Parts: sequence; structure tokens; C-alpha cells
Amino acid sequence: MKKDDRIIELSKIFWEKAVPSVSIDCVVFGFHNDSLNVLLLRMKGEEAWMLPGGYLFKDESMEDAARRILYERSGAERIFLHAFGIFGGLNRSESFFDAYDDTLWHKQRFVTAGYYALVDQTAVTPAIDEFSDRCEWLPVDQLPAMLMDHGLIVQTALTSLREQLSHKPIGYNLLPETFTMPELQSLYETILGEQLNRGNFYRKIMRYNILIKLDEPRKGGAHKAPNLYRFDEEQYKKALSQVYW
Amino acid sequence: MKKDDRIIELSKIFWEKAVPSVSIDCVVFGFHNDSLNVLLLRMKGEEAWMLPGGYLFKDESMEDAARRILYERSGAERIFLHAFGIFGGLNRSESFFDAYDDTLWHKQRFVTAGYYALVDQTAVTPAIDEFSDRCEWLPVDQLPAMLMDHGLIVQTALTSLREQLSHKPIGYNLLPETFTMPELQSLYETILGEQLNRGNFYRKIMRYNILIKLDEPRKGGAHKAPNLYRFDEEQYKKALSQVYW
Repeated sequence: MKKDDRIIELSKIFWEKAVPSVSIDCVVFGFHNDSLNVLLLRMKGEEAWMLPGGYLFKDESMEDAARRILYERSGAERIFLHAFGIFGGLNRSESFFDAYDDTLWHKQRFVTAGYYALVDQTAVTPAIDEFSDRCEWLPVDQLPAMLMDHGLIVQTALTSLREQLSHKPIGYNLLPETFTMPELQSLYETILGEQLNRGNFYRKIMRYNILIKLDEPRKGGAHKAPNLYRFDEEQYKKALSQVYW
Repeated sequence: MKKDDRIIELSKIFWEKAVPSVSIDCVVFGFHNDSLNVLLLRMKGEEAWMLPGGYLFKDESMEDAARRILYERSGAERIFLHAFGIFGGLNRSESFFDAYDDTLWHKQRFVTAGYYALVDQTAVTPAIDEFSDRCEWLPVDQLPAMLMDHGLIVQTALTSLREQLSHKPIGYNLLPETFTMPELQSLYETILGEQLNRGNFYRKIMRYNILIKLDEPRKGGAHKAPNLYRFDEEQYKKALSQVYW
């Protein structure tokens, strides 16, 4: 990375304003056209991509910091956020700021907390920051080269999402307001990376008691109109807080 | 808390040796006589209890730090450790070190990473440290008053353990080497805090394919001798890395 006066200027602000040694990285999942995607940034002059991330300010909680960082990069608010892991290996980012001396904020050792978020991809406006030239949705099964340990962080988030899906409902925020059963199943299959039996899927999803069947099926199309569902928000929230064995 | 010269001495060592702002708290679960217990310390002169915890040294990874802290308090090695959450609220420990000035290491704002561990309670020797007068197993459903946010940390660990149990096998390390099906079911019921149907339990646990039935049933007792099982270590590890939907 080339030396940049703006980074030195920001370094001074962070020493003043932020908690040392702690950073936050967000894995933002979106679902579109049967593809599970993740929101990534590319820094100017770099080939590899990175997660939207940032630092913890002295006057905010970790969760508020994660929400702020996510909002800055995506405009998304009031989203489902889950702290899924902590990444505290030695030398995580050692060589990245080689051009700077050791007083640079960014050259500290950082322990980063991983938060994943599920968002409605169509309702999000990816926004580059001053150091990046691209901010895009990229398919999670074809990740580009990633900076530092960000590839590992995405994989860990995906595992955690899959585990969550095995015992909690998922879909709210990832699907449009109304959807068909095959569309919901397709979301599950995409996240799990495997085909599911239709009957089993129907049975398991119904036991959560989170779906409301609409009176009107979807219009248009040559075939029999498929039934439409929407989530029952209250039941959905209840199911999120329960453990199913 | 009263002022203690030893804490001031340690503060200087930590400023030198440890990463600022990051701490680790361990929720160590053990299972004994149908009770799920957690390993807690009580500081000298305090009424409330706390989790075994500590700081991250500059030359170790987060996971190594968690293992070291756990080893110091319990003598347990090579245990299952899981980072289940990050606790970064404002003012988590604000008033605790009031007697000291702000140069004290312990008075920083700390973001703490929660790790839970599952151990064989009979193989562990709880060890007090120089600041505590008690280190004991206490039942998780009758927790005493806890310092700072440690009560919340235990509850979050328990929720995470319950969720893990809904989609991964649990029992290895928590049960003796051989056990009966009712003993395994009792462990699950204790963690979940609810009764389970015997047939359903048997069916679900068998699909993991992790149990080996021994040729010899348990000896002694007036009733029909119950079948004994042990875990198939290899299958158990495989099941841990899979997602069951």
C-alpha cells in the first residue's frame, strides 16, 4: 500500500476518538436471483477485496458501532445483526501498512469482532468510502481474493448462518414481502449449498408457525398460480428466541 | 473495592505485556448429578461472584489466551472452547475500580470476548487466584449475584449452548466415558431445561451416528441391566462440523 497523508490525518483522529485494539468487520448477506451474495469493498490501488469494517468509538457500544459501520456502507438500518465470532490471531494485518511508521493507528494489533447481517439486497445502496473505488455484491460461492483474514471471516459467518438456519427461521429481510414456498426453499438451499426434499422442507418450516398464507395466489404465468406467503412478524420474533430440539 | 498495592503492581505489568481494551471471560460448564454447573470465582472482600477471565498478551492469539486463562483456573487442557459472543457495552465495569486513579490498567474500557467450555467436572481442580477466596462449581439455574455484566454473559453462553445442542451433538467431555441412553437424555434435558420425549430423543440422537453400543450392559442393580454406550470420537468430530437441517 502506498503512503497517503489522509490516512495519517485519520490516524490522529482515531487515537483521540476510538478504543484501541478493537475493530469490527461486517459480513452483509443479501439474496438475489437465487444467489447468496456478500457486500465487499475494494480499496483503490489494491487487487484484493475487503469487508466493510471500522473502529469502535469511545462513546458507543460494540453493537452501535457495527450498526453505524453498516449504515455508512449500505444505508441499511434496523437490520438483523449477529456477533458470530472473534478473530484475534497474531499478525492478522502485519504487512499491510508497511509504508508507515509504528505510530499509525492502523498498525496496532487489532482483535476484530465479526458481525453478520441479513439485508434485503434491493433496498440497499452500496456506497464506497474515500479509500475504495468499488463496493459491490459478490456471490459468496465465488469470492475474489480477500485482504488479510477476511476470507476466513466470510467462511466463518457462512457456517454460523447455516447453523442458525438449522434451528431458527431465516428469510425475513432476505426475501420480498410475499413469496412462494419454492422461493423460500430456494433461499434455504442456496444458504445450505444443497438440495432439500420438498415434503421435509414444508413440514419443518411449518412447525415454526411463522407463515401466513395469503388469500390471493400470485397472478400471471401460464401454470397454476402458486400460493403466496408472508411472514408473521410476531411469531417470527418468538421463533427466533426459541430453541428447537 | 479497597485499594491494593498488588493490583497497582500488576497494572504496570499489564500495560507492558497485554493488548489494551480486550479481555476474555470464560463460561466453563460442567455436568454432575443431573445439574449443569458453571465455574465461578469470588474475589476476597466481595459478595458477588465472577467468571474466570483475564487479558490477551501481546504474543498470543485470542484462543491461546482463552486456553491459558482456563488452564490457570481449572487445570483443564485440550477442551472444547467456543467463542459465543462479544460484550462491548459502555460502562461495563465503571465503578468497580473507583478507589484507583485512571492510569490503572483495569480502569480502561474493555470489550470482552466470551468463550464457553465444556469440561468433565470430575477431572477439573478449581483453583483460586491471588485475588479470590473461592473457586467453585455453582448450578447454572441458581446463579448467585454476579459482578458487572457477568450474569448476562452466563445467560448468553447458556443460550448459545442450547442452540448448539439443537444442531450438533453434545456430551463428549460432559459425560463419563460410558453412559446409558437415559443418562445422555438427562444431560440434554438439563441443558434445555425441559423434558424430552424418549422416543424422539432416541431417534434424533441416533441420526448423528456418533454412539457405539458396548457388548456388556452395566452390571449391578436390581433391574434389567441398561445398555451402555460410548461416543465414536471420529464420527463425533465429523458431526460437529456438519449442519443438519
